Amino acid sequence: MTNKQFRLAARPVGVPKASDWKLGEEEIPTPVDGEALIKNEFISLDPAMRGWMNEGKSYVPPVELGAVMRAAAAGKVIASKHQDFAVGDAVEGVLGVQQYAISNGRGLRKVDTKLAPLSAYLGGLGISGLSAWFGLFEVGQPKPGETVLVSGAAGAVGSTVGQLAKIHGCRVVGIAGGAEKCAFIRELGFDGAIDYKAEKLSDGFRRELPKGIDIYFDNVGGDTLDAALTRINLHARVVICGAISNYNATEKPKGPSNYLSLLVNRARMQGFIVFDYLKKYPETYQALSKHYAEGKLKLRETVVEGFETFPDALLKLFTGENTGKLVLKI
Amino acid sequence: MTNKQFRLAARPVGVPKASDWKLGEEEIPTPVDGEALIKNEFISLDPAMRGWMNEGKSYVPPVELGAVMRAAAAGKVIASKHQDFAVGDAVEGVLGVQQYAISNGRGLRKVDTKLAPLSAYLGGLGISGLSAWFGLFEVGQPKPGETVLVSGAAGAVGSTVGQLAKIHGCRVVGIAGGAEKCAFIRELGFDGAIDYKAEKLSDGFRRELPKGIDIYFDNVGGDTLDAALTRINLHARVVICGAISNYNATEKPKGPSNYLSLLVNRARMQGFIVFDYLKKYPETYQALSKHYAEGKLKLRETVVEGFETFPDALLKLFTGENTGKLVLKI
Repeated sequence: MTNKQFRLAARPVGVPKASDWKLGEEEIPTPVDGEALIKNEFISLDPAMRGWMNEGKSYVPPVELGAVMRAAAAGKVIASKHQDFAVGDAVEGVLGVQQYAISNGRGLRKVDTKLAPLSAYLGGLGISGLSAWFGLFEVGQPKPGETVLVSGAAGAVGSTVGQLAKIHGCRVVGIAGGAEKCAFIRELGFDGAIDYKAEKLSDGFRRELPKGIDIYFDNVGGDTLDAALTRINLHARVVICGAISNYNATEKPKGPSNYLSLLVNRARMQGFIVFDYLKKYPETYQALSKHYAEGKLKLRETVVEGFETFPDALLKLFTGENTGKLVLKI
Repeated sequence: MTNKQFRLAARPVGVPKASDWKLGEEEIPTPVDGEALIKNEFISLDPAMRGWMNEGKSYVPPVELGAVMRAAAAGKVIASKHQDFAVGDAVEGVLGVQQYAISNGRGLRKVDTKLAPLSAYLGGLGISGLSAWFGLFEVGQPKPGETVLVSGAAGAVGSTVGQLAKIHGCRVVGIAGGAEKCAFIRELGFDGAIDYKAEKLSDGFRRELPKGIDIYFDNVGGDTLDAALTRINLHARVVICGAISNYNATEKPKGPSNYLSLLVNRARMQGFIVFDYLKKYPETYQALSKHYAEGKLKLRETVVEGFETFPDALLKLFTGENTGKLVLKI
């Protein structure tokens, strides 16, 4: 029995290639005092991982060449010398793209698999849910009755943002690629859907946003952000959660040429990182779980099976093959 | 005796041309009950005026074709049927590019020419001072010890922003074009100056901003904004006051391609319009006047003489020929 691991072999240029990864294996480690050994069952696949592969200063240090790829993962404790974790506990944390992980307990969260399946704690009841929550409420500061536009609306974060905004009493419009994704977000309760693959954004905006945009929650960047800026209302808030359209760019991406709409409309564009709200994680996990338990927050996931498919599975984020949270099942 | 007026004859494409204006004259109007007649002495020349000449929705309606060009102006009351204004009062308001103006008193402010020369009430003790104040304090929210970078630093707004930030205990660096302007802002107490005509911004930033940027007060937009975004600190604030580099553009300007620095640094970029803070004008005029009276706020102006030179005088803003406030003396 060995521990298979994906290590970063090279810094990708553009879309990550097979040669950017090295699949290795090592002995399964043994926990010492204060540690637990986890057998990972699901690896979280997140757009942010692409950024972690790049060199240079960012909000977290890059994954070093040769290191196990950083990722959130969920699994079960199979050996423990940590007082807070017992064999059999279901847990979630930044455990890496590997089959087994040692944890000293920092950032390791026990989760309740009676309430929701284990993988949900990587999605809407995990980091994606937190990103949606803090971006929407802490940065976006929505008021009931306001119009919220979300891009990447069928993704893990976007689909949660939309549902939280609906619960809060907002009107919610999503941008997604394809009829199936648009049907999905309508099922979730979105008031409107714009299929960017089937229509011009400007046409969709005209139809779905007669009262403009009070909050634009941006997961994609590029032309979508630029177009949304033309429709913002007075005192609008543009929440920059991500820019998946840029992450594999080999040339410097275009900036939002309509940014002066921020001036005309006295609006703000603000970025955030989920880690900054660490102190609010417990109460937010609780709130998300409550919405989920009450059936108000629905979670969808796209599961890819097989640890060794990781390099290809990750790319599905960028080709938009996932609906809801993308997870790798080991 | 007639009232000469510049009216908007055409919507300019790019840099305003002589043919975009019509110099006309009419009889000097007579005030009726509730009105005062002002003889303008100084016309305020502001970058925002270029925007007012364009068609389309903005924060104020465009100047209509054929209408007297909108502008702030300062002068003396020469006839009055308004209870609050007497002949001889020095006043300032949005009086238009004309020699004489009728006012019903709305937005007309009596000013003290014993404290400061009349034209100062168009600059640092007027709309430029208000813009600097609200942009810096309301949007930028500086803390003592923070580093403030200002572009267009030798202009009316920029030079005031820098001085107010110094009074507040910040470290202040300005970007200006030419050795003379850089010497001027150093005289005003700026801690550092970057001459964008003589050096690369990146070199200037490396020298003058060893601790990065906490607040970037942007008057120019374009490449300067984009470059500044690469140097912002955690929780930085980018105050969008204007974008003079774009105002005469005939093609869609480039957006700030480094805007994702807002995400990495959990920073915000926010626009504002001075008119939104109308309720705070009286206390702010008072504060600006106090700093001026105490010698802490120094005002410089570039005066162009002759009413009929208006079309050319306005363009000096865009060629950067002014240091401090640009005013037209009638």
